Amino acid sequence: MAVARASAMVGFVATSNVEGARRYGLTVAGTMAHSFVEAFASEREAFVAFAEDHPNRTTFLVDTYDTLSGVRTAIDTIRALDLAGRLGIRLDSGDLDALARGARSLLDDAGLPHARIFASGGLDEHEVHELVQAGAPVDAFGVGTQLGVSADAPYVDSVYKLTEYAGRPVLKLSAGKASAPGRKQVWRGQAGDLIALRDERSGPPDGAPLLEPVMRGGHRLADAPSLADARERFHADLAAVPTKALRLMHPEHVVVPKSEALQALTERTSADARGRSGG
Amino acid sequence: MAVARASAMVGFVATSNVEGARRYGLTVAGTMAHSFVEAFASEREAFVAFAEDHPNRTTFLVDTYDTLSGVRTAIDTIRALDLAGRLGIRLDSGDLDALARGARSLLDDAGLPHARIFASGGLDEHEVHELVQAGAPVDAFGVGTQLGVSADAPYVDSVYKLTEYAGRPVLKLSAGKASAPGRKQVWRGQAGDLIALRDERSGPPDGAPLLEPVMRGGHRLADAPSLADARERFHADLAAVPTKALRLMHPEHVVVPKSEALQALTERTSADARGRSGG
Repeated sequence: MAVARASAMVGFVATSNVEGARRYGLTVAGTMAHSFVEAFASEREAFVAFAEDHPNRTTFLVDTYDTLSGVRTAIDTIRALDLAGRLGIRLDSGDLDALARGARSLLDDAGLPHARIFASGGLDEHEVHELVQAGAPVDAFGVGTQLGVSADAPYVDSVYKLTEYAGRPVLKLSAGKASAPGRKQVWRGQAGDLIALRDERSGPPDGAPLLEPVMRGGHRLADAPSLADARERFHADLAAVPTKALRLMHPEHVVVPKSEALQALTERTSADARGRSGG
Repeated sequence: MAVARASAMVGFVATSNVEGARRYGLTVAGTMAHSFVEAFASEREAFVAFAEDHPNRTTFLVDTYDTLSGVRTAIDTIRALDLAGRLGIRLDSGDLDALARGARSLLDDAGLPHARIFASGGLDEHEVHELVQAGAPVDAFGVGTQLGVSADAPYVDSVYKLTEYAGRPVLKLSAGKASAPGRKQVWRGQAGDLIALRDERSGPPDGAPLLEPVMRGGHRLADAPSLADARERFHADLAAVPTKALRLMHPEHVVVPKSEALQALTERTSADARGRSGG
């Protein structure tokens, strides 16, 4: 359910999660399972049964036994039932580039240029990028596993850091793990982000503060945002990320500058901490 | 809590999770947090306060400000309080190999050859292996994050596969994703594992079946095993894994053979499925 909601938030156009679609008002789309095909005496019988249930939006899963043979069976089924709704086939294994070209050719030769080709099967952003760059005739991608897990960042290495104790700003200087002292606010403006002390008189002229209280005394201070609001915020935030940091390959890390007051406090507290080292 | 239990099962000798230690009867061990050191006016005051609370097992976290300076402060504290229990220092950042050698030298010169050196800080099995191979004088490693997450295998790519429908064995032949038909049993014996059909008269002479019912009608059939039983089973299972598959670097995949009956059924069902492809 969380993946269905998150995927809708970031721009996916449909989900195969029926309850997710119902709960969040999303478009439901998808096709049969391989087990559906296997449960019939023949692939063709499975396709006919599915098309009779879904005549207006029919996608055939063609790779249970042999992909291009499956595409031919889909074409036969479309002709036999005279299907006229939204038509497509789905590739879920093998060399997706080659199979998409083979399937496109068979569909075009059969007078079905409007039949769409869906590709899926453990795809991630890099494989999608490669297929697009190669010009594979894929009309839509289905992504599940790689969206629902964070395989390239499987944990958030977050650590509690003390920044103030009894009114005194503190930090640690550990190699590669130095922290910055004091209570902070992060500002986002046209010129980028700025980390400042929380009590600095004001942030940059056009900046908005990013840290805001969401709970107080154990209670949340506002209702959760709607999916529409979350989607709007996501797209606005994404648009604010510098292009160089958005690149799929070799993105550049964005270094967020610190305000002069925070820099000065860090220097003072570091000098102080070096004095505290030892006795 | 799950990590504390799992780590005890696989051979870790202690946990810093106090509630985990209480609940599962484990040895609790650990040291102060960096924030503890920062909360005192000096590192030395923090070390003295900690040693007064833990006089019999005292480990000093020395890298909050400057690691080797922290080791000297630990030595001063040990001498000043005349500590005689189990003593140690913990390195949690920086070049652990070089710092361990530097710390060892300072401790030995101070007449504290029995003071142990603990290393931690996002370590995984490869970094531990490198430090051991390099001969770094580290007496014990603390591993947290990399034990609690599965960073090298962040998801189980498991899929429902139909193997039998209405009494008929079925499979899919999808490229790279072919499945084997029929209900199965896995046997483990001296000669290794064997995947067989569930209804084959018997497994290998010395084999034990690995698949067993754990739930029926929505209820578990037995209590969960004790931690001691789970630990014993883990070590027995680990001992049964071929050495070549246990290697840290370039382990070899174990290919589990299929019984003759399963091979024959797979061939028959594949031929049958190719007939079902198309119409």
